[in-house]
Amino acid sequence: MLPFSQFDPAGQLRHLITLDGLTSDQIRGLIERAQHFLRAPGVEPARSHELAGITVANLFNEPSTRTRSSFELAARRLGADVLNIEIQLSSRVKGETVLDTIYTLQSMAVDVFVIRDAEPGVGQFVAEHVQDHVSVLSAGEAHLSHPTQGLLDALTILQYKGGFRDLVIAVIGDVRHSRVARSAYQVFSALEVGELRIVAPDALMPEPSEMPGAVRFNSLEAGIAHADVVMTLRVQKERMAEAAIPDPHDYHAAWGLTRARLKLARPEAIVMHPGPVNRDIEIASDVADGPHSVIRQQVTNGVAVRMAVLETVIANRRQRQGLR
Amino acid sequence: MLPFSQFDPAGQLRHLITLDGLTSDQIRGLIERAQHFLRAPGVEPARSHELAGITVANLFNEPSTRTRSSFELAARRLGADVLNIEIQLSSRVKGETVLDTIYTLQSMAVDVFVIRDAEPGVGQFVAEHVQDHVSVLSAGEAHLSHPTQGLLDALTILQYKGGFRDLVIAVIGDVRHSRVARSAYQVFSALEVGELRIVAPDALMPEPSEMPGAVRFNSLEAGIAHADVVMTLRVQKERMAEAAIPDPHDYHAAWGLTRARLKLARPEAIVMHPGPVNRDIEIASDVADGPHSVIRQQVTNGVAVRMAVLETVIANRRQRQGLR
Amino acid sequence: MLPFSQFDPAGQLRHLITLDGLTSDQIRGLIERAQHFLRAPGVEPARSHELAGITVANLFNEPSTRTRSSFELAARRLGADVLNIEIQLSSRVKGETVLDTIYTLQSMAVDVFVIRDAEPGVGQFVAEHVQDHVSVLSAGEAHLSHPTQGLLDALTILQYKGGFRDLVIAVIGDVRHSRVARSAYQVFSALEVGELRIVAPDALMPEPSEMPGAVRFNSLEAGIAHADVVMTLRVQKERMAEAAIPDPHDYHAAWGLTRARLKLARPEAIVMHPGPVNRDIEIASDVADGPHSVIRQQVTNGVAVRMAVLETVIANRRQRQGLR
Repeated sequence: MLPFSQFDPAGQLRHLITLDGLTSDQIRGLIERAQHFLRAPGVEPARSHELAGITVANLFNEPSTRTRSSFELAARRLGADVLNIEIQLSSRVKGETVLDTIYTLQSMAVDVFVIRDAEPGVGQFVAEHVQDHVSVLSAGEAHLSHPTQGLLDALTILQYKGGFRDLVIAVIGDVRHSRVARSAYQVFSALEVGELRIVAPDALMPEPSEMPGAVRFNSLEAGIAHADVVMTLRVQKERMAEAAIPDPHDYHAAWGLTRARLKLARPEAIVMHPGPVNRDIEIASDVADGPHSVIRQQVTNGVAVRMAVLETVIANRRQRQGLR
Repeated sequence: MLPFSQFDPAGQLRHLITLDGLTSDQIRGLIERAQHFLRAPGVEPARSHELAGITVANLFNEPSTRTRSSFELAARRLGADVLNIEIQLSSRVKGETVLDTIYTLQSMAVDVFVIRDAEPGVGQFVAEHVQDHVSVLSAGEAHLSHPTQGLLDALTILQYKGGFRDLVIAVIGDVRHSRVARSAYQVFSALEVGELRIVAPDALMPEPSEMPGAVRFNSLEAGIAHADVVMTLRVQKERMAEAAIPDPHDYHAAWGLTRARLKLARPEAIVMHPGPVNRDIEIASDVADGPHSVIRQQVTNGVAVRMAVLETVIANRRQRQGLR
Repeated sequence: MLPFSQFDPAGQLRHLITLDGLTSDQIRGLIERAQHFLRAPGVEPARSHELAGITVANLFNEPSTRTRSSFELAARRLGADVLNIEIQLSSRVKGETVLDTIYTLQSMAVDVFVIRDAEPGVGQFVAEHVQDHVSVLSAGEAHLSHPTQGLLDALTILQYKGGFRDLVIAVIGDVRHSRVARSAYQVFSALEVGELRIVAPDALMPEPSEMPGAVRFNSLEAGIAHADVVMTLRVQKERMAEAAIPDPHDYHAAWGLTRARLKLARPEAIVMHPGPVNRDIEIASDVADGPHSVIRQQVTNGVAVRMAVLETVIANRRQRQGLR
């Protein structure tokens, strides 16, 4: 068997399991396409019939309001049919029954699987086994990958900063356990950002071999200094314990993004967060809602990016099939 | 901040959190619009594309088959996209995270929030914070408000009785804890019904200051005498205990609407119930299914009323935006 | 009251609760119609607007990914609106409240109820009470009936074998508790298959009075010999205990369909299974995935058969109503 590739024989995107390996041009292509789907608030969203006849199955291991709704609306606004199925695929990997579930849905003419799972490898495993016309999109894979999040983060930065090459981007918090940080690292590396910083207590830093080229800071103040983009990450209570931080209040005191700390960044810095926000833990409430925050725009961009990805993989499939 | 208003600056309906404050004309306008959506059984339901491009999010704190399905079908038959999300918003009011959920969905271009919650105030709180183009509709708020139920009750009475001014309407049962009764009181007061009676054991009566103008009866027989409309309310076991009524059987004996008691009302009286019915508790099974019962018509009217409300708030929004 | 019939006064199919009583012509008509909906993998599925304006409610007593998704996609690809409601109707039969649920949905203009329930009789009970224009389709009734499964099984055999009269069909496993086996027996009897065998340990055989005409084998080897179609059934752990088989491994040793055993059938035999498969229990993994297996085609046929049934009952309704 050939090594797994997200691309079809013509080199076009077929699956999106990871941003690792995507070129700057491919990423820019998706982001530019996403921009076509953006509308001002209160203006009716972009819609098309590009995916009429296409069936998208959302297979989520948890009732994720945010990402599931984003994929669902993206698919529906392109005219697709959507099945929402709450299922823990990874628990079925044993005995291969994950494939029975997938093959059953594939036999019902599901064209795109959107998969979120807490265990690594499920998305690629599925992608390696589906028929040629079927695509698999990751909606979050363990601590490893959240590619549409990486794309929406890049789109958001492009909107506010106009480019990437001269930027200092600081990713702050529990980088070690964060799929958001890994996808951000991949997309920012491909886009050759000026300086990518990872800022975390030692215990929440990724392994030394991971994320080559990123500059590491175990001081929040040093890491944030003169940054153009401050990306905060969601922290979980069990991870604080791992970092020997007794409770959320202590985490906020040591690692929370406050107005005072934000002043160390560039005056026109933007503040990002993948959501849902733990207010006054990794980020102060007034910063999350403040003038530097672009958190809501990230959500808007999420729908647009998912529309772009869905439209792209279906367009590429039709090209493979000689339909265009 | 201005005091909360359900109306936009042009005086047009934007939110529907309560019927309190709606004029007779506004209520009649909604009811008349609803009548356009009614079809005979077996005839395909009224449909339009008025809400094409609009996204409606149903945020329910419980898996409510009845009301959720009614709103969902209303929205879909107008061409809207619908997201169903089971979520207890009130438990999120702390730390403001209810707003994070709402802002996230708003950033995905959700246009209408339909909210059912067991705690008071959630709907208004959301309505006070959403963007100008967004509307909030209550699908049931604690014991306080269920405005589309009030409208469908009024529509049902109009269908069978042709008007309101000469009617005696008796609302029977656990008035104290009933959002249905409160919305009924508001709508019937605005429509100036001839006589509005509330009929309940003392412990299930609302506070004396509530529902001015309504005539109170703590005898079922006296309260029902010569009534044109007999509206029974759903009772819950814990409320019977509060009223020192030992069990459902005793409740039925003392407060159940039986055929014998219904004979005290006018011969052509109609019997209403918001559903789901506790058969042989607040209402005898043969009365619920009998010739006076209009309970199923109420359900049909519910979809039509919700279509009218959805269509109205979106039409008003388009007018605000200068789109019409 | 007339005895229950699935047919309307004109003799056209209105409900589908059981295959018992359907003629060969009626079954062939549905199967032929289903074939029109089949497309090659990767080709966009057949779609129409035949059911535009029609509302289908899926009432399932469990979150059944497979059959629920199949009915949902079938309805949507015909243009219907679909409500998914997880509800245990049978637990509501007491106090008649199952009918309150049904009447409520009927009053919202639900046209077709698709019902799966673990207790017998629910589908017929509902069908006996709905209005003339409403249809009820079984999606699995206790151990008794799974009519669309029977139809998709027949369609699959027709595709691979071209007919029924000369075939030896062996149904293997827990026939006693299987609704799939009962619907298969009914459809194969109507289609007059050459020889229908039921192959099971004595404890999992149906009562002697059941399934007249079928040939019984309590030896797997004898039952499978020279079969053209080998249909394996899903077995449940508690049923193995009933058959005094200690565990799944022993079940597989005694009753599992292995490659060695399959060699006893005709060389071009097909292997069927209703899914989900218990791999290496009732069927060896390499047989389920092997060249004789048509299990995935059965799933594909399931959507097509459900489209045919939905289209048929709605077409018949329109004819009853004089609309065509």
